Amino acid sequence: MAEAPSIRNDATRPTRTIGILGGGQLGRMMGLAGLPLGIDFLFLDPAADACASAAGELLQAEFGDVSAARRLAERVDVATIDFENVPRETAEALQQTCPLYPAPNSLGACQDRLSEKTLLTDLGVGVAGFQPVWSRSDLAEGLERLGYPAVLKTRRFGYDGKGQAVLHDEEAAERAWQDLGENELILEAFVPFDFECSLVAVRGHDGEIRFWPLTRNVHHNGILALSRPGVVPAPLQATAEEHMRRLMHHFDYRGVLTIEFFVTGDKLVANEMAPRVHNSGHWTIDGSSCSQFENHIRAVAGLPLGETRMERPCIMFNWVGTLPDRDRALRVPGLHWHDYGKAPKPGRKIGHATLTAETDSQLMDRANEVAAIAGGDFPALLPKL
Amino acid sequence: MAEAPSIRNDATRPTRTIGILGGGQLGRMMGLAGLPLGIDFLFLDPAADACASAAGELLQAEFGDVSAARRLAERVDVATIDFENVPRETAEALQQTCPLYPAPNSLGACQDRLSEKTLLTDLGVGVAGFQPVWSRSDLAEGLERLGYPAVLKTRRFGYDGKGQAVLHDEEAAERAWQDLGENELILEAFVPFDFECSLVAVRGHDGEIRFWPLTRNVHHNGILALSRPGVVPAPLQATAEEHMRRLMHHFDYRGVLTIEFFVTGDKLVANEMAPRVHNSGHWTIDGSSCSQFENHIRAVAGLPLGETRMERPCIMFNWVGTLPDRDRALRVPGLHWHDYGKAPKPGRKIGHATLTAETDSQLMDRANEVAAIAGGDFPALLPKL
Repeated sequence: MAEAPSIRNDATRPTRTIGILGGGQLGRMMGLAGLPLGIDFLFLDPAADACASAAGELLQAEFGDVSAARRLAERVDVATIDFENVPRETAEALQQTCPLYPAPNSLGACQDRLSEKTLLTDLGVGVAGFQPVWSRSDLAEGLERLGYPAVLKTRRFGYDGKGQAVLHDEEAAERAWQDLGENELILEAFVPFDFECSLVAVRGHDGEIRFWPLTRNVHHNGILALSRPGVVPAPLQATAEEHMRRLMHHFDYRGVLTIEFFVTGDKLVANEMAPRVHNSGHWTIDGSSCSQFENHIRAVAGLPLGETRMERPCIMFNWVGTLPDRDRALRVPGLHWHDYGKAPKPGRKIGHATLTAETDSQLMDRANEVAAIAGGDFPALLPKL
Repeated sequence: MAEAPSIRNDATRPTRTIGILGGGQLGRMMGLAGLPLGIDFLFLDPAADACASAAGELLQAEFGDVSAARRLAERVDVATIDFENVPRETAEALQQTCPLYPAPNSLGACQDRLSEKTLLTDLGVGVAGFQPVWSRSDLAEGLERLGYPAVLKTRRFGYDGKGQAVLHDEEAAERAWQDLGENELILEAFVPFDFECSLVAVRGHDGEIRFWPLTRNVHHNGILALSRPGVVPAPLQATAEEHMRRLMHHFDYRGVLTIEFFVTGDKLVANEMAPRVHNSGHWTIDGSSCSQFENHIRAVAGLPLGETRMERPCIMFNWVGTLPDRDRALRVPGLHWHDYGKAPKPGRKIGHATLTAETDSQLMDRANEVAAIAGGDFPALLPKL
């Protein structure tokens, strides 16, 4: 490998190139947001058709390929991620050559549901009752203690409802054990929530934190279907921000961090966190002055943070598996289309749209139009928002 | 070349790839706006470092390279431009294989100031008095008729104040003739304007026209320095829209078209037009629901048009030659940064920033901050806005 003087820790040199581990839609939207800041992007992803390559150069390699990670690090000023399950060795190899934000401490905590829940509890953030499950008898004991229904989850690599089962009775418990028993598991009490919401926030290089308003979320088959910011009562916003502050301080975090909550009455129960930009923050591209993507890039690049105010009422529709009719959807005023350039596939997130309006009632009128055009489950899901 | 069935005139197939002649900042911003619509871009430009390549693939070739234009056309569904001086042969070669918008009729009219002025006059759009100049005696006769001061301009390839001279006396006329006399020229009466403004509008595939609000412009050394939309009296907006409608109808236009005007009292005098997205419309990225770039791409791709309302007060600052301190500028709330990724060079447009605010007075406070940070002539130019 060619020798080059190390310039990556020179704080007087502005960030020109950011390396991103992962070249999916999150990386793509970071790239599209970062290019106008004068920053170029280099993505590492095993897929030759990684959709982020529309916004930068692709280094095609497995995430566990430590030497590829080093090659990436040599060419960039700073590195970040578009998914949290970065192998520890890869993160460490990166860090030897260039800064990595968020730092591996937060990645590690979010990769394992048990350490995540333990940390949240230690920091005074309420979570559902939980118990680690190493054996069939741990499971029985946990069900005894937490009661039915409960949720059995793999501790690692779960996302979009994968690797988990809701247990309503002994028979379901046995079936879930057969399915998942080979993994490290965690059993969680089922939270009978009123609704789900998430807080997306960004912490800058100087420790400044900015919060977007809580976003109310509707999931379908374990995957986010709809998001709407600005409709969660203010006291919950204050509580969520306090939780976020503690977490970010704990990690000495830099970049965007997301916490998903269940809401029961006036209480927030943290479900999980993600050390990255998040699907429930996609509305910020069109509904906020500075998006989660731009603010993450600003934080990582050491630039001042942008404004996180919600600028107008909006709802995000997630396109999973297939895209609705683009032409018909674009006829709805205030609709902003986001095609990720990915091949359609059942259960795959391939795009979203953010609908904006001047008023809440105009928003709901337009949202009904969009739901009718999108079809599928949207007409039934929209009233849940 | 590989044979492929012609699918480009199949109206039932959605546009997936757009070819753009020219890979400068306008092409780059079209690409960044078009990628989320699910459209890919192929740029033709002679420069290996054409900045639009951040948003698509670059086909490096001269604009007069007809076979390169044909190769581009083979690979795209539809073509457009990021500059108007496309050689006629290239435009024709393109059109034989794929649709080109805007069509060559409007390109031709805008390439020659004489045909432009003649057409505007024919359509009832007021212009300054003018006279074609083929000889030194034409110039003398024109000055006799139009009086001093007058402006001698090359008919072709002029932009950003290049290829023109303001004549205040016989001596200046002689000097300008020595400088420019080898070109086809036009002499124009000097318009003692109160201020300059421009109208940017878009016409869709179905003939629908949408207008952004008139933008007030301040030039410096012949190059746009500042733009501010939403501050020109409504009667002028109505007149400008009527002019635009006539022009677009005349050309059966598709895409974004711009007319620059001088304002004297309650009158508009058309100065020139550009058959493309325009520097004075850059504020639409951050200040309008759907930018000039996205709407141009929507029109070219045959998609419905987006909203052109001004969503908040804003001012655009043009970065010519050098960029101001990015970090300091980004500390001003509501500032949106646009670095084109071009090498700095005197007189070259290398970026812009759009400042947004909640109110006009907040906007001016922030604008004074930005002008102070940008330095140079901005503190003196801002009060002219």
